[in-house]
Amino acid sequence: MTELNPELFDLRMSDKAQPLMAAVKKHLEENVAPITEEFFALNKEKEDRWTWHPRQLELLQGAKDKAKASGLWNFFLPDDETGNGLNNLDYAYIAAELGKYPLGSESLNCSAPDTGNMEVLERVGTEAQKKEWLEPLLNGEIRSAYVMTEPGVASSDAKNVSTTAVLEGDEWVINGEKFYISGAGDPRCKILIVMVKTSPDAAPHQQQSQILVPKDTPGVEILGPMHVFGEDHAPQGHMHMRFDNVRVPKENILLGEGRGFEISQLRLGPGRIHHCMRSLGKAEKALELMIQRGGSREAFGKTLVKLGKNVELISRARIEINAMQLSVLQAAKAMDVLGNKEARVYVSAVKAMVPEKVCTIIDQAIQMHGAAGMSQWFPLADMYADMRHLRFADGPDEVHHMVVGRAEIQKHGLW
Amino acid sequence: MTELNPELFDLRMSDKAQPLMAAVKKHLEENVAPITEEFFALNKEKEDRWTWHPRQLELLQGAKDKAKASGLWNFFLPDDETGNGLNNLDYAYIAAELGKYPLGSESLNCSAPDTGNMEVLERVGTEAQKKEWLEPLLNGEIRSAYVMTEPGVASSDAKNVSTTAVLEGDEWVINGEKFYISGAGDPRCKILIVMVKTSPDAAPHQQQSQILVPKDTPGVEILGPMHVFGEDHAPQGHMHMRFDNVRVPKENILLGEGRGFEISQLRLGPGRIHHCMRSLGKAEKALELMIQRGGSREAFGKTLVKLGKNVELISRARIEINAMQLSVLQAAKAMDVLGNKEARVYVSAVKAMVPEKVCTIIDQAIQMHGAAGMSQWFPLADMYADMRHLRFADGPDEVHHMVVGRAEIQKHGLW
Amino acid sequence: MTELNPELFDLRMSDKAQPLMAAVKKHLEENVAPITEEFFALNKEKEDRWTWHPRQLELLQGAKDKAKASGLWNFFLPDDETGNGLNNLDYAYIAAELGKYPLGSESLNCSAPDTGNMEVLERVGTEAQKKEWLEPLLNGEIRSAYVMTEPGVASSDAKNVSTTAVLEGDEWVINGEKFYISGAGDPRCKILIVMVKTSPDAAPHQQQSQILVPKDTPGVEILGPMHVFGEDHAPQGHMHMRFDNVRVPKENILLGEGRGFEISQLRLGPGRIHHCMRSLGKAEKALELMIQRGGSREAFGKTLVKLGKNVELISRARIEINAMQLSVLQAAKAMDVLGNKEARVYVSAVKAMVPEKVCTIIDQAIQMHGAAGMSQWFPLADMYADMRHLRFADGPDEVHHMVVGRAEIQKHGLW
Amino acid sequence: MTELNPELFDLRMSDKAQPLMAAVKKHLEENVAPITEEFFALNKEKEDRWTWHPRQLELLQGAKDKAKASGLWNFFLPDDETGNGLNNLDYAYIAAELGKYPLGSESLNCSAPDTGNMEVLERVGTEAQKKEWLEPLLNGEIRSAYVMTEPGVASSDAKNVSTTAVLEGDEWVINGEKFYISGAGDPRCKILIVMVKTSPDAAPHQQQSQILVPKDTPGVEILGPMHVFGEDHAPQGHMHMRFDNVRVPKENILLGEGRGFEISQLRLGPGRIHHCMRSLGKAEKALELMIQRGGSREAFGKTLVKLGKNVELISRARIEINAMQLSVLQAAKAMDVLGNKEARVYVSAVKAMVPEKVCTIIDQAIQMHGAAGMSQWFPLADMYADMRHLRFADGPDEVHHMVVGRAEIQKHGLW
Repeated sequence: MTELNPELFDLRMSDKAQPLMAAVKKHLEENVAPITEEFFALNKEKEDRWTWHPRQLELLQGAKDKAKASGLWNFFLPDDETGNGLNNLDYAYIAAELGKYPLGSESLNCSAPDTGNMEVLERVGTEAQKKEWLEPLLNGEIRSAYVMTEPGVASSDAKNVSTTAVLEGDEWVINGEKFYISGAGDPRCKILIVMVKTSPDAAPHQQQSQILVPKDTPGVEILGPMHVFGEDHAPQGHMHMRFDNVRVPKENILLGEGRGFEISQLRLGPGRIHHCMRSLGKAEKALELMIQRGGSREAFGKTLVKLGKNVELISRARIEINAMQLSVLQAAKAMDVLGNKEARVYVSAVKAMVPEKVCTIIDQAIQMHGAAGMSQWFPLADMYADMRHLRFADGPDEVHHMVVGRAEIQKHGLW
Repeated sequence: MTELNPELFDLRMSDKAQPLMAAVKKHLEENVAPITEEFFALNKEKEDRWTWHPRQLELLQGAKDKAKASGLWNFFLPDDETGNGLNNLDYAYIAAELGKYPLGSESLNCSAPDTGNMEVLERVGTEAQKKEWLEPLLNGEIRSAYVMTEPGVASSDAKNVSTTAVLEGDEWVINGEKFYISGAGDPRCKILIVMVKTSPDAAPHQQQSQILVPKDTPGVEILGPMHVFGEDHAPQGHMHMRFDNVRVPKENILLGEGRGFEISQLRLGPGRIHHCMRSLGKAEKALELMIQRGGSREAFGKTLVKLGKNVELISRARIEINAMQLSVLQAAKAMDVLGNKEARVYVSAVKAMVPEKVCTIIDQAIQMHGAAGMSQWFPLADMYADMRHLRFADGPDEVHHMVVGRAEIQKHGLW
Repeated sequence: MTELNPELFDLRMSDKAQPLMAAVKKHLEENVAPITEEFFALNKEKEDRWTWHPRQLELLQGAKDKAKASGLWNFFLPDDETGNGLNNLDYAYIAAELGKYPLGSESLNCSAPDTGNMEVLERVGTEAQKKEWLEPLLNGEIRSAYVMTEPGVASSDAKNVSTTAVLEGDEWVINGEKFYISGAGDPRCKILIVMVKTSPDAAPHQQQSQILVPKDTPGVEILGPMHVFGEDHAPQGHMHMRFDNVRVPKENILLGEGRGFEISQLRLGPGRIHHCMRSLGKAEKALELMIQRGGSREAFGKTLVKLGKNVELISRARIEINAMQLSVLQAAKAMDVLGNKEARVYVSAVKAMVPEKVCTIIDQAIQMHGAAGMSQWFPLADMYADMRHLRFADGPDEVHHMVVGRAEIQKHGLW
Repeated sequence: MTELNPELFDLRMSDKAQPLMAAVKKHLEENVAPITEEFFALNKEKEDRWTWHPRQLELLQGAKDKAKASGLWNFFLPDDETGNGLNNLDYAYIAAELGKYPLGSESLNCSAPDTGNMEVLERVGTEAQKKEWLEPLLNGEIRSAYVMTEPGVASSDAKNVSTTAVLEGDEWVINGEKFYISGAGDPRCKILIVMVKTSPDAAPHQQQSQILVPKDTPGVEILGPMHVFGEDHAPQGHMHMRFDNVRVPKENILLGEGRGFEISQLRLGPGRIHHCMRSLGKAEKALELMIQRGGSREAFGKTLVKLGKNVELISRARIEINAMQLSVLQAAKAMDVLGNKEARVYVSAVKAMVPEKVCTIIDQAIQMHGAAGMSQWFPLADMYADMRHLRFADGPDEVHHMVVGRAEIQKHGLW
């Protein structure tokens, strides 16, 4: 990264994106903020934790309708025909705003994992696949899941996938077990993109394929929710699933047999950047809470922020947050300037950097709160659990460090 | 600590304690281990999460009866009349064993906070107080809570206590709010020892008193459970409580007005050592799980333990666990040899050292497990939450570091 | 820093500076690189370590003359009349280039502490002061030193200065002791800017003044060189000095009595940015050496870079270097956009961040080299010592963290 | 290490060693302390830095004579015939005392590397070898060096040794290059134990041998001193050497061809423990200096020790020093109880733990001193360099962590 393209140092939002950003902010303040409290309060009114309350869906639809009416729908898609063709850097700035409102992304139809799934369908889907699944996704009528991680093998090595798909006549027959499938619990989730092994005798990176599986296909079983530090995040959840002789038509394969990894490359860059931007939003929030708590309580004759190492902790948090922000923006810019493939090392760098450091900042904010920091009175424990989860999602830290370290050594021809 | 008493380097269990240790181990294996699975499975059978299932109490009583029959009852008490007069070092070894069985301590009537409360009652209680509360506690008929932490002030400075007790005629009238009161949710909990401010005009360390308050006194309200990373630990819980014009007889005060801190000194040393020993048990467990998982899964052609920094992480965990074990044993020995007051710095040293380092080890074990490490399939997330909680319980790390650092500087006459 | 000026995210070098950068690179390659080996080899030929060899001065003058001839002289000065009026961001990029050549800065007349001293003289010097000292400095005929740090007090608090200057008639009489005065050993150093206490009864920040003292004034004694990890850096050195009834004319005071701190603000921002850019050059060098060594030696059947945590260390080094680079560039930009005063927090942030992290990276590079890493065969031990020194120069890390942490807390009105 | 031998927790010095310890302390105070200042002042009087001043040797001989007269000579040797048969634990306590006096070890004939070399000669030397080399070493008439590390290969893997010894007739012919040979610069050093490769076709651990080489053998060249952070430690030094067709009699091999590693195992355990004990002495000294400096200087209205994180740093240093002390004593005890081979993991654990943590403590002490901490006015920079060196000596940290981590994994049968 030493001899860098000067463009990688222009990290400003584009002029073109300014009005979109303004419109998004307005939408969030006027259409999303006002419904948030009622929406989450309804969680306690539901009979079944694994459904939505009808009023919740109604509230959400209202916000979505307003977004559509304002032309703020599906702007995440890079293709100008279906969306606004935002570049990654501009989208990163907007993602940071969305991250401040728990219902923000969904109100604009740009929640994970739908965004990634829609991008994939748009780029590699057949006309029929687009018609059946992309269209209702783009309309916000259904939701989707991405089914990769397995309980029985080390997911850090994506080649380990053990769920099989075997072609029998005109059908793929899928068998295997998956877990931590985020969003698969949502009753609105209708379509799954499943990573499977189709070609065990091919080269290691060409054994895998991705197949579209409607969630209601016989043999698709949801065994239950996986917990994240005691939370199950109902009704969306991170589901444990079994595929038991699940049969789907031959043409449900995406792009072709053995091209599963190729598709992964398409989807992961932008998603990781958005995760990182939202993580930085959490770090800002944690720092803010840390200062507000520590600045308003006294011990030993001083406010807590003035005791011991606390000023230095706050300084270090601020320094790291700013450095991370610049790094994430540069990774987004690298995707715009160099393309996803070349920017891969930048993306791995921020994915390895951000969640780990944000965990530390949240943990320090918890410590400043005393025991209350772990309680339901503050969002910090949930934020910590989410952020700790993120150190596994889309590849554990260790794999991303391997990507970055190896690329660095390769510059010297020594790997 | 430079010129040290040679006795502080003899960290062996005493000969006298060997048969007790053997009997405890036998009891745990024969009477406690066999009931554990059934006991916890019953949690799902209960209608009200905040009660015990009758069968649970029956199982527990059976184990207690066997312990009594074997003479293993109340051995934690240092007084020979009521207990075995174990010294702190011997008890530390036994605490490590107890920590391996979730029902171990209770089956021998030596759970926190009862042990501390019983010690206090035995040393400073009046005959009447002993008859009414110590006796049923010693018999394992009731349980108790220690009511100190408050939501409205920084608990790191114990002088901040704001709950008041005002003498009106022959009664103390108590008003205030407390939280994170462990065990107060247990329906068997009958008596509270409450830290209050009685003498706001006295010197800062003489304003506080401790008062016995039966839990069923009018005005004692349990507002709800506080969570620890999403868990409420029902039915014992860490309760949020309000004292609203609670009236208890004048003679319910312990030791006398303004002597609240003096009583705290009595109770905290041994409890902290036991916490630390149990924490080391958790660290051993985490290391074991880390190796078993990492040694049995492969990625990139090797087992996970052989990848990257993992061997070094395991080495560092082992090195730190052994060093912590020796440090905790030495602190226990210091209490035996130097007395609780002089040993205070040793105790703070291990209280500041152990939970923080054990959190790190558990976190690394989680990382080795991938996402499953945070799930309900492994005990690691719960262990992490417990250990993170312990960095606040009995004073946050920062306060203990202040005790140790100040004592070190004072050796040079420079504080 | 949350609601940031978009300009702070355009970190590209300006178009205007591109030809200057190209000319500087050409000069360094053609005029500086070729003389470097001979220059340093002459160090062994000198009779007195505290002089320059005549041939050394001749070589240097040759490079200076060429720089002047190419119009590359004094471009660091922000004033267009005397220099090229480079902004801080552009200068930061150029400083990074200069840092790659040990004689680079001097060949262009922009070595520390001369640059800072010249800036100060230009902004606050009288016509007479400019004529006598600024002119020969701008011509590269003499050098200078900045005399602030004292051995007898904690320099982290600049108000601690104890060297006194008392007005007797028309003269300031200066008494006190200073140390770590970089460059004061150089025989070409002719003028000192000395921080003194002139007004002990004024408000704390108005007691100090800065006074021009010719190095040959009677009473100015150089007691000897201070070492930095065993090195004395002759013939420039970091000198220990005594001022013993040193008398200088009343008009040698800069800007006026009690305005010493005001002058400090002028000088420190840019200098700190340049230190940080040069530090990043060292970090890049250390990382390069780490990979070259680790990639070319084998142990246990693999190259060292592939063993244990080494890939991850290399990844973390790269991630941190890139994040630091962006942070330093943003701090430079902040000086350009917000002014030195407003940008103060950005500058402290990078001054606290960079030297500490670069020390760690160099230390890891040493470890990868085995014992040879500490030896005279590699530049790493010297680089470590320089970088460790930098954690004190212009204020220790702790003071800069205090600036950043306090500013952050002040945003919430809680300091 | 979980199910531990109770003996490993009795870390007291033995009763038997108490009078020896008292005699050693008396000797150090009465015979060594008084000559120290004069001894080191003479370094400046010498014409050749690589010799001793005659008065230096005279002073040292005086102290040695007194030690011999008091029966304090060679007590390090475990064999009762030649020494006092101290166990490792007792010797560890005494080593800590010796570490406080720079001339302490030599005055009692127990300096490294002589102690290790004498132990080896006593255990595996022939009668002739003992007569020629062990006797004068035991008498303190000559000194020795251990010649292992090589500049051209990664020394972390001891199998990498490339210096060859080939049998030609009745002579070994040695060729190769070595460096960081501590003590080889001392004019009194007469005998070298050289690690060579004799059997390149044998199994990897049986290719190496150790051979006695008198330093004055033709072909033994000292190329110059290696530096440690700029210091050459004349006149003992850490020498860079070449062996150019060096011929020694066949019988100079120790123990036999291919048994070089076997001999290494004999020597390294105790030496590492002594290094660690001396390191802890340095940590104590650093902590003491940190407090004395920080407690006697003020900034921002407080002494430095009371500012920011400093109390916590001091607390952490104390906690770690105590934990390290217990760990090192336990490793010494393990050697006594389990034997060097079984105790190997304990020894690696403390060798990996201590120098790294002591480096950190010294570094923090430097920071508390401001720039003076790196200067010749305080011993901290030298202490840091020594301690940093120790992270390579007898194997880098990484190798020791590999030993400990692998042993831990092997307990579970998973390596």
